[in-house]
Amino acid sequence: MSKIAILGFGTVGSGTVEVFCKNKSSYEKNIGKELDIKYILDIRDFPDSPYADKFVKNFDVIANDPEITVVAELIGGNTFAYDCVKRALEAGKSVVTSNKELVATKGAELLKIAREKNVSFFFEASVGGGIPIIRPLGQCLMSDEIISIAGILNGTTNYILTKMLKEGAEFSEVLAKAQELGYAERDPEADISGGDACRKICILASLIFGNHIYPEDVYTEGVTSITKEDAEYATDWGGVIKLIASACRIDDKKLEITVCPNFVPFESQLSGVDDVFNAILVRGEATGEVVFYGRGAGKYPTASAVVADILNALKSESKSLIWDAYRAGCVADYRKQKHRFYLRLMNTSRKNVKALFGEVAFLNRKNTPEGEIAFVTAEITREELDRKCENLDVKGKIQILDIT
Amino acid sequence: MSKIAILGFGTVGSGTVEVFCKNKSSYEKNIGKELDIKYILDIRDFPDSPYADKFVKNFDVIANDPEITVVAELIGGNTFAYDCVKRALEAGKSVVTSNKELVATKGAELLKIAREKNVSFFFEASVGGGIPIIRPLGQCLMSDEIISIAGILNGTTNYILTKMLKEGAEFSEVLAKAQELGYAERDPEADISGGDACRKICILASLIFGNHIYPEDVYTEGVTSITKEDAEYATDWGGVIKLIASACRIDDKKLEITVCPNFVPFESQLSGVDDVFNAILVRGEATGEVVFYGRGAGKYPTASAVVADILNALKSESKSLIWDAYRAGCVADYRKQKHRFYLRLMNTSRKNVKALFGEVAFLNRKNTPEGEIAFVTAEITREELDRKCENLDVKGKIQILDIT
Repeated sequence: MSKIAILGFGTVGSGTVEVFCKNKSSYEKNIGKELDIKYILDIRDFPDSPYADKFVKNFDVIANDPEITVVAELIGGNTFAYDCVKRALEAGKSVVTSNKELVATKGAELLKIAREKNVSFFFEASVGGGIPIIRPLGQCLMSDEIISIAGILNGTTNYILTKMLKEGAEFSEVLAKAQELGYAERDPEADISGGDACRKICILASLIFGNHIYPEDVYTEGVTSITKEDAEYATDWGGVIKLIASACRIDDKKLEITVCPNFVPFESQLSGVDDVFNAILVRGEATGEVVFYGRGAGKYPTASAVVADILNALKSESKSLIWDAYRAGCVADYRKQKHRFYLRLMNTSRKNVKALFGEVAFLNRKNTPEGEIAFVTAEITREELDRKCENLDVKGKIQILDIT
Repeated sequence: MSKIAILGFGTVGSGTVEVFCKNKSSYEKNIGKELDIKYILDIRDFPDSPYADKFVKNFDVIANDPEITVVAELIGGNTFAYDCVKRALEAGKSVVTSNKELVATKGAELLKIAREKNVSFFFEASVGGGIPIIRPLGQCLMSDEIISIAGILNGTTNYILTKMLKEGAEFSEVLAKAQELGYAERDPEADISGGDACRKICILASLIFGNHIYPEDVYTEGVTSITKEDAEYATDWGGVIKLIASACRIDDKKLEITVCPNFVPFESQLSGVDDVFNAILVRGEATGEVVFYGRGAGKYPTASAVVADILNALKSESKSLIWDAYRAGCVADYRKQKHRFYLRLMNTSRKNVKALFGEVAFLNRKNTPEGEIAFVTAEITREELDRKCENLDVKGKIQILDIT
């Protein structure tokens, strides 16, 4: 008999218990032994829950129970959750988590403890919800050198950008609607600022690069400044606007990693990823381009990834993937990397634009107001772009996706 | 030191040796021991190859060498390759293969031997080339119930159909061009008849269903009868024509499994999969829809999947996925399953069509010849459809994809 503890009975926690209990007998057949959720940790009371007798309020009960072999941390945040996960690993229990903040900020440390204690630390659900990405990436990685990853990793902002583009609506209107539908949190800050996508790309980048990459080292720009005018110009250019989190190996020692809105050309597989869906494009030297697509969030998709991790931990066949501690200087200065950019300016002339930026591709939209000029530059560093924009009235500035 | 034998030095075999040797030192770091390709089996001579000293012509050398722990079978076919794989497994060596014919016809038997000998039998490269699909599917499967799989599993036919649709060309012209470009074999029979896609969907279906599904039980229709007229009607309907291999769980005991051209709506993620690319859409009860996309063939993508399997076998952390022998009656009669169908008829009238098929959605194209009528039926079994078509002059008949 293997006994499991669930930490947190929110959306993902309750979904995990539900999926687990529904399929328990087939899991037992697969694993070859009886399985049981012994504890559910939550500070709230659930007197009417069918699992009422499993609830505990003190983590000590779980940490000190030698029967518990796997702990699923579904609390979120990196304070109390961090404490629980660390103690569980130190007590020789395997841990699985859907907590991207925890993995992005404490991953290297927790993986090291797991390795020392010879237990598993899995976090498939922390990126892309129900999309298998961490383990397949580990598999690709084993045989191939990953050159770049570019992903739509946040469903809320993707829903907002999709609606803005398809319905010509403004950001604030669509955000309000997304909150009404439950696609966006009441406090949408982590989503719309790009912070959520940033944590996820940090996890993927740490995996492919082998050193921990911290969110604070990543240039992160949200979607709040995107307007429907920019979306119209994107259409004219031949693409859509998406919040792209990307990591690209510059050489063996350096990685470019950013989260920002991008013009994504229609030819890219990422351009057709709409609404709350996520997709991750991985480019390997031998493998070429591979895309993983699916629901990046939601109770049941995330829960099924958590349960798969629990079963993997119970089988203890595959040990944790691993990365080392942060190495100073491994994140390249994003201002010095060259990209093309879309710019929308007011109160200037094509002549002036040409004088400053040389040959550019001008864009058009219906009912262009007097003095508005939009175009796509040649390749230029952000540093130089910002310098050239100093005396300009910039209304829109969006990177062009060159990892297609 | 772990020693490996490569069987077959064709495209995939030479690619495997190349990828392996290029990244050998990083693999050794990952696995934690020295690795070496000791033998390459091929009946041909390669006197100028840098690996000339490794070539052998008799499989006995490999089977009888206790130093060899992993054998990679990259010969193809299910006669000599089958004999080698069976003997290797029986000799207690792990085997990896890219050979879909072998796995689709002998999978259950070989998996059983691998289990008895406690060695691995991996075949990630047999479906989808470099796209990780077998192992992620195993992972999804562990926690979730897979309801259906629908895939574009053959790059050659997808290239042909893409060109027909985009350039308004006829099948035979595009096939000739594909052969010229090396996308299609000189003998393209296995591709254009649907046979190649059929073997691949059998492997995926065996995995999700748990019983071996044989190619001869699968209704398989190729792409040779698709015309540019049908492609024009697909556009009017709002989609494209793709060769879809699909398996769908009807109940615990029965599976519908077919390979045939389908009208795929633009809303489906499969509609945007063009040229030689492959994609596999997996629908799980909890996970929802997940799509895996990438290069389904080619020297290096396939080789990188083979090498990943070799490394997995060497780590011997993850044992083979498993399915049982064939169970009579597990494949449902495809003629009795309901779908919508596109029909193109000559020498009839809308009145006649309505009398036979009830309310249908008529389609249009430019310069429709006198007497041509195209439409999409309501749901109907193939059996009933064929009966109704008996006295009609049918020019085109294509299933509508309802697994979107």
